[in-house]
Amino acid sequence: MARYKLTIAYDGAGFHGWQKQYQPHPTDPEGERTMLRTVQQVVEDAVIRAVRQPTTLMGASRTDARVHAEGQVAAFTADTPIPVERMHLALNSRLPDDVEIRRAEIVHADFDPIGDAVRKTYRYTFHTSERKPLGERHRVFHCFVPIDEAAMHEAAQHLVGEHDFAAFAHAQHGRLSTVRTIHACDVKRLSEERLAIEVTGNGFLYNMVRIIAGTLFEVGRGHWPPERVREILEGTARSAAGPTMPPQGLCLMHIEYPPGGDA
Amino acid sequence: MARYKLTIAYDGAGFHGWQKQYQPHPTDPEGERTMLRTVQQVVEDAVIRAVRQPTTLMGASRTDARVHAEGQVAAFTADTPIPVERMHLALNSRLPDDVEIRRAEIVHADFDPIGDAVRKTYRYTFHTSERKPLGERHRVFHCFVPIDEAAMHEAAQHLVGEHDFAAFAHAQHGRLSTVRTIHACDVKRLSEERLAIEVTGNGFLYNMVRIIAGTLFEVGRGHWPPERVREILEGTARSAAGPTMPPQGLCLMHIEYPPGGDA
Repeated sequence: MARYKLTIAYDGAGFHGWQKQYQPHPTDPEGERTMLRTVQQVVEDAVIRAVRQPTTLMGASRTDARVHAEGQVAAFTADTPIPVERMHLALNSRLPDDVEIRRAEIVHADFDPIGDAVRKTYRYTFHTSERKPLGERHRVFHCFVPIDEAAMHEAAQHLVGEHDFAAFAHAQHGRLSTVRTIHACDVKRLSEERLAIEVTGNGFLYNMVRIIAGTLFEVGRGHWPPERVREILEGTARSAAGPTMPPQGLCLMHIEYPPGGDA
Repeated sequence: MARYKLTIAYDGAGFHGWQKQYQPHPTDPEGERTMLRTVQQVVEDAVIRAVRQPTTLMGASRTDARVHAEGQVAAFTADTPIPVERMHLALNSRLPDDVEIRRAEIVHADFDPIGDAVRKTYRYTFHTSERKPLGERHRVFHCFVPIDEAAMHEAAQHLVGEHDFAAFAHAQHGRLSTVRTIHACDVKRLSEERLAIEVTGNGFLYNMVRIIAGTLFEVGRGHWPPERVREILEGTARSAAGPTMPPQGLCLMHIEYPPGGDA
């Protein structure tokens, strides 16, 4: 038996998020439920077919519907003759076009993708042009208005450090503590038509990155001064922060684990 | 009454091509037909709602299902108080997210988008990486194998000039003459993961660009020497040329009209 760590990229447009879930029967609460298309279900299914035994795939981040990933991490335990250096190929050949295993490694037997994660990096991407994003519309938020990038970056610096992020969490965040540490939050131009917020932290509350993006967007469009972000943090009221931005602009870029996690 | 020329961009993934078409009734040949979602129908519908009168939208190029455009051209005639400089806004506000009017101009009353076109430029894009294109999969052809760009570019030069392109046309091309002039055909790298064939000509036969792409791909992957392209042209047999590449890699980039076409 070995424990495998997978690094996974996906286009979230066609998924109901990471986590396996059933669609309730439309009329009868006791009726048969159908499974929604989720990344966890699609990848777990490929793993089971590849290793020819039942197993459970545990993911590090429960990304929402339509959110993308470049570096989601998940783990499973199995006993298989597939050499680890061919595991990503064995899985990719069983996966649809919108999800890809970027890397497969053998890790120590109690590797926990959630508990062992030390940092996560997310990116929120704005399409800053009067032109529609067209074929890219499932990957960016279309911002029609002029946007002050320097003010956004200045505002973002107030988020860096250890803070109570209660104001930046969905009401049903379900966590005991809302204190998190943000290591970096940078507003950077990717191209003439693309502006990104990149945020790295030791953990994120439910909807936190999308609310950070909505708050920085209010600063960028000139509704709020950059210092307002500090006041929102201090006040801890969700109503003071900006809106939750739509999911398609969000991408889980990277999850960092302590070195020496290999088996 | 004025004649309007529109320059249109679209993501072809959600369209059954440019040209309006009906879906036959599934069982009864005399039964009611439903209209398929096409760019012509969607844009014509927006025009009719904007100018509040019946009119017909005539397009320059009948792009196939899933083919994209950056510079499709179409024309209609109407009598409307909408100022021409606001026409693109009036139409865009009535159009879905996957199609955009880039420009609207008043042209002379007998402007014919098909007959007046002097040059068209198409681009066929390859995703040249072991990694899947994921969210870009509807816009590129995924090429897994190593590809010799220099050989492709050399092969492409045999196509430049006036030739009988019978070998590069779908059997049902429906044209009297298969002689066309290619002004330029360049194989260029757009980025580390993207290679494009850009071809400009005075006109293209049905499937011609996709067959050119398939033929240059055979050269690029080392199946044929670059000179083979000249032999295929001379032999005029469709069976000698490469395969018709899938539609999603194709984009209609630009259509050129004689200067002084304005009203």
